[in-house]
Amino acid sequence: MADDSSPLVGLVMGSNSDWPTMKAAAAALDEFGIPFEADVVSAHRMAEEMIDYGRTAHDRGLRVIIAGAGGAAHLPGMLASVTPLPVIGVPVALRHLDGMDSLLSIVQMPAGVPVATVSIGGARNAGLLAVRTLASGDGDLAARLREQLVEFAADLSAQAHAKGA
Amino acid sequence: MADDSSPLVGLVMGSNSDWPTMKAAAAALDEFGIPFEADVVSAHRMAEEMIDYGRTAHDRGLRVIIAGAGGAAHLPGMLASVTPLPVIGVPVALRHLDGMDSLLSIVQMPAGVPVATVSIGGARNAGLLAVRTLASGDGDLAARLREQLVEFAADLSAQAHAKGA
Amino acid sequence: MADDSSPLVGLVMGSNSDWPTMKAAAAALDEFGIPFEADVVSAHRMAEEMIDYGRTAHDRGLRVIIAGAGGAAHLPGMLASVTPLPVIGVPVALRHLDGMDSLLSIVQMPAGVPVATVSIGGARNAGLLAVRTLASGDGDLAARLREQLVEFAADLSAQAHAKGA
Amino acid sequence: MADDSSPLVGLVMGSNSDWPTMKAAAAALDEFGIPFEADVVSAHRMAEEMIDYGRTAHDRGLRVIIAGAGGAAHLPGMLASVTPLPVIGVPVALRHLDGMDSLLSIVQMPAGVPVATVSIGGARNAGLLAVRTLASGDGDLAARLREQLVEFAADLSAQAHAKGA
Amino acid sequence: MADDSSPLVGLVMGSNSDWPTMKAAAAALDEFGIPFEADVVSAHRMAEEMIDYGRTAHDRGLRVIIAGAGGAAHLPGMLASVTPLPVIGVPVALRHLDGMDSLLSIVQMPAGVPVATVSIGGARNAGLLAVRTLASGDGDLAARLREQLVEFAADLSAQAHAKGA
Amino acid sequence: MADDSSPLVGLVMGSNSDWPTMKAAAAALDEFGIPFEADVVSAHRMAEEMIDYGRTAHDRGLRVIIAGAGGAAHLPGMLASVTPLPVIGVPVALRHLDGMDSLLSIVQMPAGVPVATVSIGGARNAGLLAVRTLASGDGDLAARLREQLVEFAADLSAQAHAKGA
Amino acid sequence: MADDSSPLVGLVMGSNSDWPTMKAAAAALDEFGIPFEADVVSAHRMAEEMIDYGRTAHDRGLRVIIAGAGGAAHLPGMLASVTPLPVIGVPVALRHLDGMDSLLSIVQMPAGVPVATVSIGGARNAGLLAVRTLASGDGDLAARLREQLVEFAADLSAQAHAKGA
Amino acid sequence: MADDSSPLVGLVMGSNSDWPTMKAAAAALDEFGIPFEADVVSAHRMAEEMIDYGRTAHDRGLRVIIAGAGGAAHLPGMLASVTPLPVIGVPVALRHLDGMDSLLSIVQMPAGVPVATVSIGGARNAGLLAVRTLASGDGDLAARLREQLVEFAADLSAQAHAKGA
Repeated sequence: MADDSSPLVGLVMGSNSDWPTMKAAAAALDEFGIPFEADVVSAHRMAEEMIDYGRTAHDRGLRVIIAGAGGAAHLPGMLASVTPLPVIGVPVALRHLDGMDSLLSIVQMPAGVPVATVSIGGARNAGLLAVRTLASGDGDLAARLREQLVEFAADLSAQAHAKGA
Repeated sequence: MADDSSPLVGLVMGSNSDWPTMKAAAAALDEFGIPFEADVVSAHRMAEEMIDYGRTAHDRGLRVIIAGAGGAAHLPGMLASVTPLPVIGVPVALRHLDGMDSLLSIVQMPAGVPVATVSIGGARNAGLLAVRTLASGDGDLAARLREQLVEFAADLSAQAHAKGA
Repeated sequence: MADDSSPLVGLVMGSNSDWPTMKAAAAALDEFGIPFEADVVSAHRMAEEMIDYGRTAHDRGLRVIIAGAGGAAHLPGMLASVTPLPVIGVPVALRHLDGMDSLLSIVQMPAGVPVATVSIGGARNAGLLAVRTLASGDGDLAARLREQLVEFAADLSAQAHAKGA
Repeated sequence: MADDSSPLVGLVMGSNSDWPTMKAAAAALDEFGIPFEADVVSAHRMAEEMIDYGRTAHDRGLRVIIAGAGGAAHLPGMLASVTPLPVIGVPVALRHLDGMDSLLSIVQMPAGVPVATVSIGGARNAGLLAVRTLASGDGDLAARLREQLVEFAADLSAQAHAKGA
Repeated sequence: MADDSSPLVGLVMGSNSDWPTMKAAAAALDEFGIPFEADVVSAHRMAEEMIDYGRTAHDRGLRVIIAGAGGAAHLPGMLASVTPLPVIGVPVALRHLDGMDSLLSIVQMPAGVPVATVSIGGARNAGLLAVRTLASGDGDLAARLREQLVEFAADLSAQAHAKGA
Repeated sequence: MADDSSPLVGLVMGSNSDWPTMKAAAAALDEFGIPFEADVVSAHRMAEEMIDYGRTAHDRGLRVIIAGAGGAAHLPGMLASVTPLPVIGVPVALRHLDGMDSLLSIVQMPAGVPVATVSIGGARNAGLLAVRTLASGDGDLAARLREQLVEFAADLSAQAHAKGA
Repeated sequence: MADDSSPLVGLVMGSNSDWPTMKAAAAALDEFGIPFEADVVSAHRMAEEMIDYGRTAHDRGLRVIIAGAGGAAHLPGMLASVTPLPVIGVPVALRHLDGMDSLLSIVQMPAGVPVATVSIGGARNAGLLAVRTLASGDGDLAARLREQLVEFAADLSAQAHAKGA
Repeated sequence: MADDSSPLVGLVMGSNSDWPTMKAAAAALDEFGIPFEADVVSAHRMAEEMIDYGRTAHDRGLRVIIAGAGGAAHLPGMLASVTPLPVIGVPVALRHLDGMDSLLSIVQMPAGVPVATVSIGGARNAGLLAVRTLASGDGDLAARLREQLVEFAADLSAQAHAKGA
């Protein structure tokens, strides 16, 4: 459906002030060679464009969406409501409440519309979860990613051992 | 813009399971003789209709929107993002977390898109806040409502006195 | 009821230490050309003056009150109890608890006396909510403000697009 | 200043629905033979009467005020702002949040206006704290109450021993 | 890799007392015709078997793991640490703290090991997220599931409309 | 019972690291000319001395105890259990949890043993509450303190007015 | 130091209303054949006896203390401050706050005086932790208990397997 | 079982970034002359080695394990599930939520697998609790440690007195 260079993951955030947090997702995708697109898509400042983004995501070849937002964080859940793709939500901590508002606004979705929520500020894990999702299927890409994930886990473990030595 | 019988307040909720909570808003509007419409408009299950509802609310003659939702409660904030009308949000407590998730999902809106949030389960106050909003303007309706609000406050006080006697 | 230069919004706070937070409400009102008055009105240090402020607000031509306070924040709710005007409450974060105490002290009002609560530190949204309230009525001011609100939303969206480009 | 039968403690609450909680304070005062008056004095539904109650409390011979309230609980703090008497606040748990909102609304008072806060629902302790306050002074009443408090503590201990036997 | 009847999803839980919550995940998988296996795999009572379960999951043909647990809920994160598959975590509310402990124990994973967390008690959404994951890939199954997901969303919307009628 | 210079208030704290917080209580007592003693009395590091301190406080002429402590803050409650005097508890915020642990450890006392709790870090209010307590009784000191409290409130109000001018 | 029948564990609680929670600790000790004594020892109602209990515990042959308490739960920490024995604290949930106050009052002890805290209501685990403590030493009892603990873990695992079958 | 120099306590942590917190446990063990080993053993990055560490701890002569971890902190509970030794858990505060997630992930263990939890960041107390555990048994080491603990408590008290002088 998508050639090797067309984006497979849509990485969106409610405000460009979320980028210092969200760029760790981009870095994780880069490490695994996953083509992605990154954009500001505000649920509240551009509601219709946001809906359009979600509605068309699949037909444009995206296979996973990562959405970061803070406070009353509506972006991940709203996107999930208009796409059949898996949507990964990243709670971004704002000035008050240390991200607890962001977490609850993202994770406590009603039955029917899931958001795959990661930890507060956990953009790197959002990227890695996108990789796992892409690796869970059939085909060459999935096979390559699975191998990379196994290596990745071995590296993590080796680093942990090295620190412990 | 609206005759006496066309609705001035749109009372919406994310699910009909919110009605036992939200009907107290309807009762308050009835007490003040405010025509309103009530409907289920789910942010997550009917996203485009929800956007349309907000977009057209003002042109249909509505002057205030009351929106109740629970959990990752996105309805009030999403409506506020597509209408110039004041939007009053009612956090509905669901099975877990006693409404704290609903409250934070509604009240912690980003700068630019306010939601007038009332207490957890505070639908009656949402109705009364809509009355105050309509009473704050010019014109006959506002004048009548102001008088009614003064009487209402006097009644509240009288009842409190009676209880204390 | 009020000429163009008499204040339509009363912007009050419990202490002048709240001004760094609350001035964002003043700025928002200025952007929309809304005349307002700003004052320190402490619920606890000048209780009777506070009650008087609320009691007379409407007759002095005010149409909306914005009240900011922190900790055991009683100012918004006490004002709401003595005026028929809509009262917008801004929870100000103090040294401890990050504004959670302020939020709950303002939003959890009993049935009968609503406060339109915005986010912790959300003074800008308080100003914008006052604008929406004034724009919800009949008359020339309301019509002008509605137009401005539509432009404002378009600007917000354009800025969001620009950031995303 | 007061004869033996004129009330020394003013026991007030925001609503008569608080009585099932607050009556334990009355019982404690009765056990120690302290004359008191009990009344509903709503901060929000009878603001001016509430202020009057506080303003005149001392001249009417009261020496301690106990005030119970729930949710955005403003009664204890507002009374404390208009009386030089010690005010004891009892957080009453309402339907949501289990009294945490009540507790923070009462205890987090700004510098200058203290409220002596007891536990959520701790009306019995409010009564006992009033007794301790009255017992801390000079005079016959204080002396009698101190003796009673020592006996009371001995009884508590004896009961605890009996349970442990 | 797997024929139509071999399980694609491993649905595990820390205790059979989690089943009343977790069966909603099974029901969702059934609705979409996804073969799955369900088992009790306790992180704490059968640690090595739990590790083995995770280690071998992919080679046994599983493509997604759903893990529910309560309290100090370690099962989802531990499984995620030994498998390259996406792991979906369901916080189960136990007797105290209403699932907040379960949520934080599951969602706050360290960088490197993501868990796709759904709402407290949100097992149905866990099942639907597994469907979305399987639908995100290439191949016939994915294509069929995507169609079903679009129908599912249309049904949700139709039901919401019907309730609102 | 005590001459003018013997201490009427015992100001104690669990650690000398609490002094930066607690000195505001001392300052308030000084402003009202109340003689007091200040000391470190650790519930956990000098349990028996702590019990002795409480046991003998009344006979040494103290009439109020102010106790500050942080974390698992046991000092105020333990002192209250061995003295008939009113005990005022000040929750001191430590490195983690922003004083919420201190607050709950102090305020949630069981029936029978009240602690008059003030806000997190609210040592100034603890001092003022001690003054109110001493002012609530009969005699010359009480009469003088009542007058001072009335002046104090007038000053607070005047300062608030000045800020608002 | 102790023969087989003299108690090795002191199981104490602040009130006999804690027994329905705490009896699970007794049951666990019985399962492992550990002699223990159980008693009500209230930190607040019998402070000196409580101190004596802790002071003498070791000389009476006790080797571990288990203490359960709720609300402002001071018993475990106070005992830990006067004994060199390991003290295990069990937070008991009372009517409000679901045990969060009990947990923080027990676990957040200052440096120097540790309490080994288990989960809210986790009395069974308190008993098992006492067994592990007794099993960690030298001697016949420790050797027997270690064997029993290994069997116990095998039984837990077998039960978990059986449930999963 | 172990000579004087072989480690009696295993001090492990999930990441070497936990060392600034955990070194206080090492210091406490050093003060009491307890030989220990310290290592990084990540539950999530080296799951099997972590299980092995726990499984073999007792046979290698360890008698207590201290485990520190942050966020979704699984290390203490997982170790406790595979060893009969007492496991002491130290919640390490990470960037968000101030250690509340770490605390709940460690302390809320299911029945059957206790973790002796200390305060957030309370590594020094973890070390002291290990000392108390070792001191609770029979034999020369226990006798020596008991004496040292008594001296230690006397020193703590003397220091507290000196601060209070």
